[in-house]
Amino acid sequence: MTKIESLRAEYDAAKAKGLGLDMTRGKPCAEQLDLAAGLLDCLGRDYQAADGTDCRNYGVLEGLPEARALFAELLEVEPAEVIVGGNSSLALMHDSIVQGLLKGVPDSPPWPSRGPVKFLCPSPGYDRHFFICERYGIEMIPLAWHGDGPDMDAVERHLQSDPQIKGLWIVPRYNNPTGAVCSAETVERLAHMPAAPDFRIFWDNAYAVHHLVDDPPPLANMLTACRAAGNPDRPLIFASTSKISFAGAGVGVVAASPTNIRHLLGGLGIQTIGHDKLNQLRHARFFKDAAGVAAHMRKHAALLRPKFAAVTEILTQRLGGKGIATWSDPKGGYFISLDVADGCATRVVTLADAAGVKLTKAGAAFPYGKDPRDRNIRLAPSFPTLPQIKQAIELVALCTELAAAER
Amino acid sequence: MTKIESLRAEYDAAKAKGLGLDMTRGKPCAEQLDLAAGLLDCLGRDYQAADGTDCRNYGVLEGLPEARALFAELLEVEPAEVIVGGNSSLALMHDSIVQGLLKGVPDSPPWPSRGPVKFLCPSPGYDRHFFICERYGIEMIPLAWHGDGPDMDAVERHLQSDPQIKGLWIVPRYNNPTGAVCSAETVERLAHMPAAPDFRIFWDNAYAVHHLVDDPPPLANMLTACRAAGNPDRPLIFASTSKISFAGAGVGVVAASPTNIRHLLGGLGIQTIGHDKLNQLRHARFFKDAAGVAAHMRKHAALLRPKFAAVTEILTQRLGGKGIATWSDPKGGYFISLDVADGCATRVVTLADAAGVKLTKAGAAFPYGKDPRDRNIRLAPSFPTLPQIKQAIELVALCTELAAAER
Repeated sequence: MTKIESLRAEYDAAKAKGLGLDMTRGKPCAEQLDLAAGLLDCLGRDYQAADGTDCRNYGVLEGLPEARALFAELLEVEPAEVIVGGNSSLALMHDSIVQGLLKGVPDSPPWPSRGPVKFLCPSPGYDRHFFICERYGIEMIPLAWHGDGPDMDAVERHLQSDPQIKGLWIVPRYNNPTGAVCSAETVERLAHMPAAPDFRIFWDNAYAVHHLVDDPPPLANMLTACRAAGNPDRPLIFASTSKISFAGAGVGVVAASPTNIRHLLGGLGIQTIGHDKLNQLRHARFFKDAAGVAAHMRKHAALLRPKFAAVTEILTQRLGGKGIATWSDPKGGYFISLDVADGCATRVVTLADAAGVKLTKAGAAFPYGKDPRDRNIRLAPSFPTLPQIKQAIELVALCTELAAAER
Repeated sequence: MTKIESLRAEYDAAKAKGLGLDMTRGKPCAEQLDLAAGLLDCLGRDYQAADGTDCRNYGVLEGLPEARALFAELLEVEPAEVIVGGNSSLALMHDSIVQGLLKGVPDSPPWPSRGPVKFLCPSPGYDRHFFICERYGIEMIPLAWHGDGPDMDAVERHLQSDPQIKGLWIVPRYNNPTGAVCSAETVERLAHMPAAPDFRIFWDNAYAVHHLVDDPPPLANMLTACRAAGNPDRPLIFASTSKISFAGAGVGVVAASPTNIRHLLGGLGIQTIGHDKLNQLRHARFFKDAAGVAAHMRKHAALLRPKFAAVTEILTQRLGGKGIATWSDPKGGYFISLDVADGCATRVVTLADAAGVKLTKAGAAFPYGKDPRDRNIRLAPSFPTLPQIKQAIELVALCTELAAAER
């Protein structure tokens, strides 16, 4: 039996088992959600904020004071620099872009008023970021993600030559999916580089406190860095408790300069009378402060670490030293990024799917869903059980070998 | 002492009391919010929907099945014709308009692609509707509200002559602020009238079940009427529990044809991964069905009726038969609409404000905040206590007399 015949036989045997596993999205598992069970009933019937606000009624567009204070501490900014929103930070990003398109940013006309709008899209990145750009015809300029942030030479070169670049997507800590963390030097360059005045960095700090290790890599304060560099309005910082408390019923926030905050509130005030303050109050009561969140996140890490370890262990066992794949070993976040042989990602995902393991679509982490090298696969180990992950990753490794052998 | 001198003396005496009352917005009072106290803790720690969905996690963009069923029954549509959103129906309206501007409605290009966008705005109407149009440069065409709906002759005339009219705002039951209810004939005309294919009726049924009387006026089913007329995609129907459960932590919904629902979900799916299903579950569990909501609304009515009665009683006593003011006597909703003598509304509001009673800004209920006759004042009796309302309306009546005498 040749190598490929033996791999095919192994694959056919695996396929016969009909696994029925789903590793497509970075969803918390039930045990993680259970950690915040107290959030469900911590209010009792006490709906009053510390300042006496009746959280059941209308108003307080900028968010409840205690919720702003909690997120300010977490993001190392001032409460006045925070808007606490509804359950989705993605909605805050989406709506900020929609406002840029229709109304512009402070002291600037709508983005499209001088030509087509473009965004810099370090890739692989978060597919939902790219979907927003694609929907509204924002031209996406892909560039590479390195271990210490986006390819900064490329970022600076593009910005110098094209004033129609109005945005840059960055997940600065534990990038989705590579796990990379922006270095202090990257933050400094982002803060100082020349760019159009209405250019914004969409700093999606989705995994700000989502560490898998005890000594997490540091992340410089983007708002402080930009203020010091004389570009205070450059960053829009997003975060949420979707992967801290409840994925579907958390709290999303945006942090930015006072000028940006005023402008964002101007738009939000047309869109809504206020977000759900009862849920903001639940979060403030349950977590109390940044230390409370940190303690909570250690419990998440304890649940997630064995899952991530299983993935890297199996990949190392099956693929290590074979020269057909590399993968990330993230210190936090929700994903492991697997690069298979060039031209093989689609085939690996198809093979895995046919054998009952659904993976994120090949190319999903790239603008327009197109991975130029067709090699990247995003693995999301949080939701399945440990035995499921082991089965799934054994299969992914097998498919990776088989696809490489086929070529 | 002349008439005006005696009114001035009375006014000065009232002013000296320094009332400090706020009647600007249609906010529920604490006693109304208390009616839904059970909503705060009805979940316990049971987060599972009837179909087993873990409401804490991501997903279910269209809304929880039991929440869709509840609102479908309330709005007399099919569950598949309902999207259950977050805490704000205003956000659903806003976002629908933003999508119209940037992407268009099903099978049509973006609204602005063939010229400036216009909306028909029966007035007096809801100020926040008009704010959305104003923010995005949508030209507002004012027309009159009658007792049985908008001035339908004017609506039809405008639509016939201008294909750039893409929207019509209507609060069909207990119009904010006039309390008018669209008649069956109005609904038929709205359903049948010729209009551009990408024209939409923004049917904001905010007060669908908010009756003050035991025999509420009927409202024909807009979705059914438009389907029967061959214009199934014409209406977008909005509603919320903001004034049923909690003003700031309710549930907003949109109901429409399957084609519109698909299109709206396409936009929402880019904006968010899903709305807060835990809050949807709370509402489904607490209210159970339309009968549960109706029973609940009778308790609201019991609290609101004396407040509305006090307003009309005092206005009748002080202003009746003097020919200087008329006012609505609504059978539901949140407002009483007071028309003072032409050119006097701003003066009345200013006088009242100086004497410690804040009223909604004169003209607020008209496009661009401009009441062409400067006569309309929106009274919102829900939030203050009964003694406060009596004091406030005594003063409003006095200011109305004084302003008329001054002229």
